[in-house]
Amino acid sequence: MKRFVIIVAGGSGQRMGSSIPKQFLSIHKEIILMKSIRAFYEFDSTLKIILALPENHISYWNDLCQKHKFLIEHSIVSGGLTRYHSVKNALEKINTNGIVAIHDGVRPLVSQATIEQVFEIATINGNAIPYIDLIDSLRFVDSHLNYPADRNKYKLIQTPQAFDCELIKRAYEQEYDKSFTDDASIVEKLGIKINLVPGNPENIKITSQTDIKIAEALSV
Amino acid sequence: MKRFVIIVAGGSGQRMGSSIPKQFLSIHKEIILMKSIRAFYEFDSTLKIILALPENHISYWNDLCQKHKFLIEHSIVSGGLTRYHSVKNALEKINTNGIVAIHDGVRPLVSQATIEQVFEIATINGNAIPYIDLIDSLRFVDSHLNYPADRNKYKLIQTPQAFDCELIKRAYEQEYDKSFTDDASIVEKLGIKINLVPGNPENIKITSQTDIKIAEALSV
Repeated sequence: MKRFVIIVAGGSGQRMGSSIPKQFLSIHKEIILMKSIRAFYEFDSTLKIILALPENHISYWNDLCQKHKFLIEHSIVSGGLTRYHSVKNALEKINTNGIVAIHDGVRPLVSQATIEQVFEIATINGNAIPYIDLIDSLRFVDSHLNYPADRNKYKLIQTPQAFDCELIKRAYEQEYDKSFTDDASIVEKLGIKINLVPGNPENIKITSQTDIKIAEALSV
Repeated sequence: MKRFVIIVAGGSGQRMGSSIPKQFLSIHKEIILMKSIRAFYEFDSTLKIILALPENHISYWNDLCQKHKFLIEHSIVSGGLTRYHSVKNALEKINTNGIVAIHDGVRPLVSQATIEQVFEIATINGNAIPYIDLIDSLRFVDSHLNYPADRNKYKLIQTPQAFDCELIKRAYEQEYDKSFTDDASIVEKLGIKINLVPGNPENIKITSQTDIKIAEALSV
């Protein structure tokens, strides 16, 4: 079955203490976004890679690829106003059946096992998303009250989230809703059950300079 | 007001790929448990430090202190079968009023700001515990179903958790219950409202070799 990955590298509005969006910063001298793409290429060199980038980052990215001699083939689509719109644009590039994984560009430490599992289970069951266990205690908090939640009944959800192409395209035909927290929640809105597979805890989302230090420690 | 800290270093049953319990492993050559103790000593050198250690680790710990010339004064109590019982034993050493912080021995990266805040708010309001925001998505999961949870309504809870001594001693007079996930949940069982203060995200619980690598990156 044909396989795709959509790498979402929005983040035009977010900064991390430098003027360069975080997906363009480096871990051990490798650009984060290139490392994320490379993880999928290493899993399957025939996989079709679609990168969703803000319009005004595209020429910067192309320059980076030249400078770093980054040769992994990928197509680029313009990102939208939100992550939802970026993924929707990217899905329009997919016109055959197959399985598509959707991955945050700032999660370069996804393991080969995680990628393999989400594709495998999505191929059998239509979708799969990776989870990890909570280490800290968990507490429900709103402006009125707070109380402990049973951390064994909650999981942290990461990416890549993989789906049957027809299913995810149908999910994205629904009108945008702010309850859409990730791709799984969009598919779920169709009444579809989501399948969980174990992820790798190192697969952190890089949102700060601290995370870059952590990622460097984890990718020695 | 008199200040105490109980450092809980149970973990006799848990291993982390080596035969030495994790609190005795090192971060940049400093024993994790010593680093945790030092964080409180640096906050207030007059603070009374009580260390709860499994009986069969005490002589090992004393040897380590000699070998590393660890001179920060602390008293030692035997840990119990569970964390609950270890804290209960340690609380028996406190016979005056004041504020006591209870801290995991394997959280050496607690910041001075976090320690300061929990003591300050507990002094005013009777208790305080540190929280951090979730970065990943969150999902409720049990054996029947799974669905997204609003991560903005949940916080990860860390230590130190600080309490008025009289309050926490009264809380620990309650019979042990498996709903006691942390000290706050034990106090809450008395019908007391828990106060949250911002923690520091680096204050991770060291439960694996990976966490040691992360902690080393964070404590450069």
